[in-house]
Amino acid sequence: MIEKLRGVRDFYPEDYYGRTVIHERLFGALRRFGFKEVCTPSIESLELFSRKAGDSIVDEIYAFKDKGGRDICLIPELTPSVARMVIQRQKELKKPVKWCSLSRHWRYERPQKGRQREFYQYNVDIFGVRSSRADFEIIAAGIACLTSVGLENFLFHISNRRLLESFFSSYGVDAAQGFAVVDKRGKVPEDEFGAMLAGIGVDEGCAAALEELLSVSGTISEGIPRVEALLDREDPHVAEALLSLREMGEMLDAYGYGGHCMLDLSIVRGLAYYTDLVFEVFDKAKSMRSLFGGGRYDTLVELYGGQPMPAVGFAIGMPVLEILMKEEGSWPEPDFGPDYYIVTVGEVGETAFKLIQSLRDRASVEYDLSGRNMKKQMNQANDIGAKRVVILGERDLAEGRATVKDMVSGEQKVLAIADLFTL
Amino acid sequence: MIEKLRGVRDFYPEDYYGRTVIHERLFGALRRFGFKEVCTPSIESLELFSRKAGDSIVDEIYAFKDKGGRDICLIPELTPSVARMVIQRQKELKKPVKWCSLSRHWRYERPQKGRQREFYQYNVDIFGVRSSRADFEIIAAGIACLTSVGLENFLFHISNRRLLESFFSSYGVDAAQGFAVVDKRGKVPEDEFGAMLAGIGVDEGCAAALEELLSVSGTISEGIPRVEALLDREDPHVAEALLSLREMGEMLDAYGYGGHCMLDLSIVRGLAYYTDLVFEVFDKAKSMRSLFGGGRYDTLVELYGGQPMPAVGFAIGMPVLEILMKEEGSWPEPDFGPDYYIVTVGEVGETAFKLIQSLRDRASVEYDLSGRNMKKQMNQANDIGAKRVVILGERDLAEGRATVKDMVSGEQKVLAIADLFTL
Repeated sequence: MIEKLRGVRDFYPEDYYGRTVIHERLFGALRRFGFKEVCTPSIESLELFSRKAGDSIVDEIYAFKDKGGRDICLIPELTPSVARMVIQRQKELKKPVKWCSLSRHWRYERPQKGRQREFYQYNVDIFGVRSSRADFEIIAAGIACLTSVGLENFLFHISNRRLLESFFSSYGVDAAQGFAVVDKRGKVPEDEFGAMLAGIGVDEGCAAALEELLSVSGTISEGIPRVEALLDREDPHVAEALLSLREMGEMLDAYGYGGHCMLDLSIVRGLAYYTDLVFEVFDKAKSMRSLFGGGRYDTLVELYGGQPMPAVGFAIGMPVLEILMKEEGSWPEPDFGPDYYIVTVGEVGETAFKLIQSLRDRASVEYDLSGRNMKKQMNQANDIGAKRVVILGERDLAEGRATVKDMVSGEQKVLAIADLFTL
Repeated sequence: MIEKLRGVRDFYPEDYYGRTVIHERLFGALRRFGFKEVCTPSIESLELFSRKAGDSIVDEIYAFKDKGGRDICLIPELTPSVARMVIQRQKELKKPVKWCSLSRHWRYERPQKGRQREFYQYNVDIFGVRSSRADFEIIAAGIACLTSVGLENFLFHISNRRLLESFFSSYGVDAAQGFAVVDKRGKVPEDEFGAMLAGIGVDEGCAAALEELLSVSGTISEGIPRVEALLDREDPHVAEALLSLREMGEMLDAYGYGGHCMLDLSIVRGLAYYTDLVFEVFDKAKSMRSLFGGGRYDTLVELYGGQPMPAVGFAIGMPVLEILMKEEGSWPEPDFGPDYYIVTVGEVGETAFKLIQSLRDRASVEYDLSGRNMKKQMNQANDIGAKRVVILGERDLAEGRATVKDMVSGEQKVLAIADLFTL
């Protein structure tokens, strides 16, 4: 037998059911936020992904030549494709552009818990607005997505990269190098982290101040005064970032979502294309790696050849969401039992098929496809979890009646045939 | 700017909306038939597709080596993957196995109307039963899919390959060769068709009888006596095929679907793996190529290394379905206008965000993200098709009231703030 590839997943009905429910709930929430669903191709020119320099994703891309000799690939992430779609219609699109999508991605990496070579991701973006309201809207949408699927036990760790950028600059340290090291904090031993800082020219004073800055926690409004005390408030980038965070924090409070957010300057989101707001979402116990992340990337559209256009968004990886929901017991379990099972005895064909057709207008209906006798039909009905059984017998039918049995209560009643059609 | 690849499609919200509606309706219908949704990987071992010899699909596969040196490919069709999933759990799965799925496929061919290099297909299968009821169930499910999306003007052309097989055998003609030529009927000029028949050893008498057989049309019950008169009824394959068709036709009649079906022995479904029932669906005017097709393939599971297990199913290509629905005017057009647009004037932030949050529990709500003045907010509300506008002004708010405007009727009314929350 030929087996499936490593790192991909077969979804049997009982595995897939939860996904379809999550999908309805997430997109329902996003629609109420005004997001509209788009869909991108799974294959793109390799250049679309290789252009964005310095990204570790490039090494993991499933790249190949198509039969026309073009260098193409399976998309490892969605943002470049969405940016491409925005740019193609940049003039006509009404701002803000609020798009969401669910798409499949492929990365050739070592499969592990929550990380597969083929995986699904929800992508949510707002293009065309740079404002604290847009930042608020994206974070509120992210929180609404999680609460829509029954999760409550999560926390958005929020920062603005300008703050740490200003901090490093004031100490004469290259900010990009600084971000790269900060991103390793907590992932490498403490002494190694110290050595990495020293390696990019961070002296003892700077390291101590950095530690204080990265230790700021609490809600956004609690954290801001502490950050203010540690940074150069004359720096316009710092002032703008703090104002934006403060406004966003107030909106989140008014919206009732303040308790799901904390200020955390240790969040830098690797070396990616983020410019201002950045966030990562953890379960409150922080027992697993970040659930998902996002932020503002105002230079991205330009990077892909468009006119400058601000953007803010996030992506939720389905595998991690599924793990967390299963741990919390909120994963939707299927009930595949049909509403009706039609048991037939003798020559009742025409009435049976008329009844099946009629009930299927509004209910799920199963019946025997393989010539089972009555007892085996009842067994099958029971076996597949049918909620009600209609027994159509040749003799009963001649007398214009049939039996309906409730499989949960066991209750049975005899109905006129005509009444079956209005069950 | 980097462009999308040829033969793939970007779905903007207005393009994608219809698909999501179709999806809900099709899967709603299939669920009422007892089908359960599965999902297969997009990448598989190339061997899974190359094993099935003699199929033209193999030349069109997007095949490549992954970073581990494995020969893999993008799936060009779904059936082999589904067969693989069935085989993996062949013992545990309860029969009948009724599965459906929507999946993406890739074939490197010349893009044209209704044919893209990347495309979606619905796949519907019943594994584990060989019976006229299962054949009926699959055809009825196919018809229900089409009627669920508002199509009525279509016809299932139905045959059983055993009939033509017996016919060719009785004339000493190789059946596989015969099928290949019959598949060309109507696609090549008449004299070329004649020459092809002669080429595989069909003499004049056989050709004349064949023509008569292929010209049989009408409903299944009308067509059967005509076919019976032209074939060897002593051949057990013929007798079984005709009985099966007759029983299926009676069920379809009882189900009210008889008018959507006709007997048509010219349907052979190429050289694929079909064994008995075969069908293709056309719009009644037969103005375009077949909408989709299907049939019974009882040897398929064995072919992929499983225990023998009968199967019957079909696949609907999304591109052709979309074209037909658009032609018939039944394609769902989106209405993206939000239920509410909240216009804010002055310092009304907290109330505004509380209101937005509350309304978004049950309705779609938009508001200004970029600091527009009141007039421009009203313009935007109008522009995006908002159904109602709530105007929250600083002064009104102080007096505990706000204005709600119905954007369709133009009607305006003043409400107490508390009443906004129960809108």
